[in-house]
Amino acid sequence: MTIKAVVFDAYGTLYDIQSVADVTEQAFPGYGEIITQIWRIKQLEYSWLRSLMRRYEDFSVVTRDSLAYTLRVLGLKRDDTAFERVMDKYLHLDLYADALGTLAALKDKKRAILSNGSPEMLNALVANSGLETVLDATISVDSKKIFKPSPQAYSLIEATLGVPPREVLFVSSNPWDACGAKAYGLNVAWIERVTPETLARTCVDNAAIAPLTMFKALRTQMDELGVTPDHRIHSLSELPRVVAFHES
Amino acid sequence: MTIKAVVFDAYGTLYDIQSVADVTEQAFPGYGEIITQIWRIKQLEYSWLRSLMRRYEDFSVVTRDSLAYTLRVLGLKRDDTAFERVMDKYLHLDLYADALGTLAALKDKKRAILSNGSPEMLNALVANSGLETVLDATISVDSKKIFKPSPQAYSLIEATLGVPPREVLFVSSNPWDACGAKAYGLNVAWIERVTPETLARTCVDNAAIAPLTMFKALRTQMDELGVTPDHRIHSLSELPRVVAFHES
Repeated sequence: MTIKAVVFDAYGTLYDIQSVADVTEQAFPGYGEIITQIWRIKQLEYSWLRSLMRRYEDFSVVTRDSLAYTLRVLGLKRDDTAFERVMDKYLHLDLYADALGTLAALKDKKRAILSNGSPEMLNALVANSGLETVLDATISVDSKKIFKPSPQAYSLIEATLGVPPREVLFVSSNPWDACGAKAYGLNVAWIERVTPETLARTCVDNAAIAPLTMFKALRTQMDELGVTPDHRIHSLSELPRVVAFHES
Repeated sequence: MTIKAVVFDAYGTLYDIQSVADVTEQAFPGYGEIITQIWRIKQLEYSWLRSLMRRYEDFSVVTRDSLAYTLRVLGLKRDDTAFERVMDKYLHLDLYADALGTLAALKDKKRAILSNGSPEMLNALVANSGLETVLDATISVDSKKIFKPSPQAYSLIEATLGVPPREVLFVSSNPWDACGAKAYGLNVAWIERVTPETLARTCVDNAAIAPLTMFKALRTQMDELGVTPDHRIHSLSELPRVVAFHES
């Protein structure tokens, strides 16, 4: 089956969300990494909980609320200037080094983002990182008022690009997103950014388990959700090979 | 407004889920607490993700899958005997010390459990802890094939007890559950089991942040979900006073 469209998750897949850690460290010295990790966990939790509660608010609200929660549980004073500086970084995340090259190499396919981000967040992010020329569409779940992994979110791919699920390759580093896309019927490449072997070297014994390692582990390892993505890759640059595999 | 029914969450509210830590420690020495914490986080995540993905499986499946994930990310060999021993503890959780007395003191009201647990898990748990005589109903979300905090789950209270939301007091120590119940329209008492002050004493500086403290913090502190429970209490034994407040 030929792949006619390659659709990317944004946060953690094309864009390195760990790149907020530096700004966060400057704003809250000594807490950059731990804020980044807790913030991300709660940002995802709130997106799922609000979806289930039918209390959708767009991803900028969820992102603000989860940062507010994080500072509160860490006992950090909320300084408005620092807060806004950290939030602003979400509109200027670093691209992974191979993102632009990979998108350019896939120029014979439709290329798009499907993200939980609000249209405003995504448009700013794409403009600030110079991806406009290598994307055919930037799709936000916002029009459905529900977040991934709801099937309604993934349905926006066909609705926007006119390509049915069996001809789409969806790419995400987020295990739950890869599983959700697979459950919906898309072809899925999961980017495993931290291998079990790397993780195991860090967790040689219990005393050595650092909190940050554990938080990262929870986000990077494949989940047990009853579905398995089609491809396990380790960087975006492997995608042209994956696409070629489908056509061989 | 008179309260006609007091409805309790089970896991973490009437039953101490930390009581699995001892059995887990025996089965996997040195890892009891960290397994308990990660297991709980992933158990909840999987319940929300499966609900959103429309891939419901009952809570016993979600509980097994999240334990399997936990052992895998910690690099622990899965020993079937140890695995089953840990799982079995979920049917024999310890009651909080004031659970039975509080339920008995509320005998003039309808008293029920509304839980994510499967009917089999809940029936075993209630029987093993001797709560049958102080409960009018044990309600599982299973008949709706979706987990809390979906409104469909909370709707089972009125469907089962015949008491409308405004005459129900719902009790949970889980912040997301308290918020979900409040968003649905129930009166809600949230049990804050770890105060911010207690948490702050543990997190005096970044170097002192232990992974277990951070994991616990994520589960015990009120969430930022745009709703606020009606009552913040610190133990089940405060509930007769809360009920009386509604009638005064």
